[in-house]
Amino acid sequence: MGPVLLALVVLLAAARVGGSAAERFRQPAVLGELAAGILLGALPLAGLHGLEYAARDEVVGAIAELGVIFLLFEVGLSTRLADLLKVGPSALLVAVVGMAVPMALGYGAGQLLLPGRHPFVSLFLGATLCATSVGITARVLKDMGRVGSVEGQIILGAAVIDDVLGLLVLAVMVGLVEGQGAPLPTLGLVGGKAVAFLALALVVGRWAAPRLFRGASRMHGKGVLFTAALVACLGLSWLAEVAGLAPIVGAFAAGLVLEGVPWDELLPEGDRIEDLFLPLSTATVPLFFVRMGLQVDLRALAGGPVLLALALILAAFLGKQACGLAVLQRGVDRLAVGIGMVPRGEVGLIFAGIGMSLKLGGAPLLGPGELAAVVAMVLVTTMVTPPLLRWRLARPG
Amino acid sequence: MGPVLLALVVLLAAARVGGSAAERFRQPAVLGELAAGILLGALPLAGLHGLEYAARDEVVGAIAELGVIFLLFEVGLSTRLADLLKVGPSALLVAVVGMAVPMALGYGAGQLLLPGRHPFVSLFLGATLCATSVGITARVLKDMGRVGSVEGQIILGAAVIDDVLGLLVLAVMVGLVEGQGAPLPTLGLVGGKAVAFLALALVVGRWAAPRLFRGASRMHGKGVLFTAALVACLGLSWLAEVAGLAPIVGAFAAGLVLEGVPWDELLPEGDRIEDLFLPLSTATVPLFFVRMGLQVDLRALAGGPVLLALALILAAFLGKQACGLAVLQRGVDRLAVGIGMVPRGEVGLIFAGIGMSLKLGGAPLLGPGELAAVVAMVLVTTMVTPPLLRWRLARPG
Repeated sequence: MGPVLLALVVLLAAARVGGSAAERFRQPAVLGELAAGILLGALPLAGLHGLEYAARDEVVGAIAELGVIFLLFEVGLSTRLADLLKVGPSALLVAVVGMAVPMALGYGAGQLLLPGRHPFVSLFLGATLCATSVGITARVLKDMGRVGSVEGQIILGAAVIDDVLGLLVLAVMVGLVEGQGAPLPTLGLVGGKAVAFLALALVVGRWAAPRLFRGASRMHGKGVLFTAALVACLGLSWLAEVAGLAPIVGAFAAGLVLEGVPWDELLPEGDRIEDLFLPLSTATVPLFFVRMGLQVDLRALAGGPVLLALALILAAFLGKQACGLAVLQRGVDRLAVGIGMVPRGEVGLIFAGIGMSLKLGGAPLLGPGELAAVVAMVLVTTMVTPPLLRWRLARPG
Repeated sequence: MGPVLLALVVLLAAARVGGSAAERFRQPAVLGELAAGILLGALPLAGLHGLEYAARDEVVGAIAELGVIFLLFEVGLSTRLADLLKVGPSALLVAVVGMAVPMALGYGAGQLLLPGRHPFVSLFLGATLCATSVGITARVLKDMGRVGSVEGQIILGAAVIDDVLGLLVLAVMVGLVEGQGAPLPTLGLVGGKAVAFLALALVVGRWAAPRLFRGASRMHGKGVLFTAALVACLGLSWLAEVAGLAPIVGAFAAGLVLEGVPWDELLPEGDRIEDLFLPLSTATVPLFFVRMGLQVDLRALAGGPVLLALALILAAFLGKQACGLAVLQRGVDRLAVGIGMVPRGEVGLIFAGIGMSLKLGGAPLLGPGELAAVVAMVLVTTMVTPPLLRWRLARPG
């Protein structure tokens, strides 16, 4: 137990110091957590027992995985399914364009700069560019009090659809790589499984959850509803994995399902289910990102990957500017929408992490060089967005 | 990740159902959690993948361990160091008698009923009888609104001292068993290390913590103080292990240290540090107890261990009745004090769990039979106390 405790202490402390430093300069905490991880990894501490554990131990890795699961669960909880269904043609078009164009550009960049590699590598790199980070976007909009603006609503609506489409893309990718081929039936099966799981989980879940949680609220003891929500989150994550999807897809679905539970009636006055999960995610989410940073090999950035990183950054930025052109309404600040879609946070990193864990011909699909390029892209898009969006939205008129 | 998720779902759901069922019959939730675990273990589900994982997997075990660490941290947080120092001769005497007599009786029972075994086995069995479960006692007193009564104050004060003495006894035991001998210098070293760690952690910690946390409160970002408290809890748990003690000793010390931080000034109005940790412990503490129940082999109760279990139950009950005689004040209900000291909850089980993990001559110090006897003792003392104490305290006059 000792090394696990030390690893948790080192990672939590580094994440918090990095996160606070980033927030001091008005940057998202996730940026500082990644940077702290990269810094820790670059220090000559390879022999330190706790650090080795932090980067490689199964227990620490599983707790970090639970962090991502809680994060996607919370994103689902704060996403109104009604918004997903009611979003107009604009948000849908923005989402589709904002996913297709960066993905095509990323695929092109990969094919151009990684000539000897399997096309799946380029496809996966493209996929890391497709999903906007709802968390970062929402955070900036909220801090500026612009969630309710037309631009804000389009960005949030599109980002939510983007996230779902991104999860489907991920499911398709993983299925493709693990199936070692891309025949249409396979693609249809993987995509169909993803849609069927989500549709079943959402339709059955949204119907059953209010009834189940009403029943649970009649059980004796403290924390019954919290535990039931936790069981739902972990249970749907498990079911998603059984269905061949990533656990985070299930966690997101669990969040969407539980968003439909009438918590106002079930919880004591003033309690919010999101707030009850806050300590769990505060304790585990940073572990995922600092550990991701710790696994970045800065030396791998030298040589080829710098070009790849620049190409990905360009593809990420230009690809999302196409979104602005897809807005149907008049009088909307198209540039603001484009900027708002730029940040690639946790989802891009999660994709990269999964790409590293997939095997293609015995070797990992994404190597440390590709990961470093994606991390550079995430770092730049995440860092550049808050000041740019603030500048654009703060303009008079 | 799949099997880990399934194991967590099964254990959390079983613990909650068991806990709620117990609370429905006005019993402590821990009783139902243990029972649910025993029931799960007795079901013919040995081949089920998730259950095998639940009982044996390293990741699930580590998360359950973190649960115990959070529990002892919370017990420390809700223990005022001032109370530990200000308790009068009564509480101290009650604690010492309430530890020495059950321990002697438990040792005697072991020597009588386990003739072929090493005396350390009897010593460890005696140790499982010594510590009163603060949680269970405090819960009953609180539910009856009698925390402030003389009996309540003596019981709580003695239980707190009992807990600290119990932790020292545990440290001494583990040192003895791992050192394979009991020369006085070893005992002095182990005991001295325990006292020195606690004294240093408390003196330096109580001096430094308010300053450190005031500094941390100036850091940017949300959840800084929560993360700092978590780092302190895990960090002192790690340091305790480095010093040769059990991690829970460090977690308890961390709680005592953090109890001295002026949270009122640092946290937003109405927030309490205990409440912030509640979701973490709600999510992990039941895992420890249900998993402990899952590891009980009911078949091992047949034959010899039934006698041992009865002897331990008798020793546990009679040993704590001696406490009542140690009360110095007049006008105190000595029987109520004796009953209030009876429940052996988490600490007895933690001792038993540690006894099972210790090796003596290649074999575990405590076998499944001894564990079952201790669990039976915990089940009976925990179950019998609430109604008995309610009966005694509810008497008029």
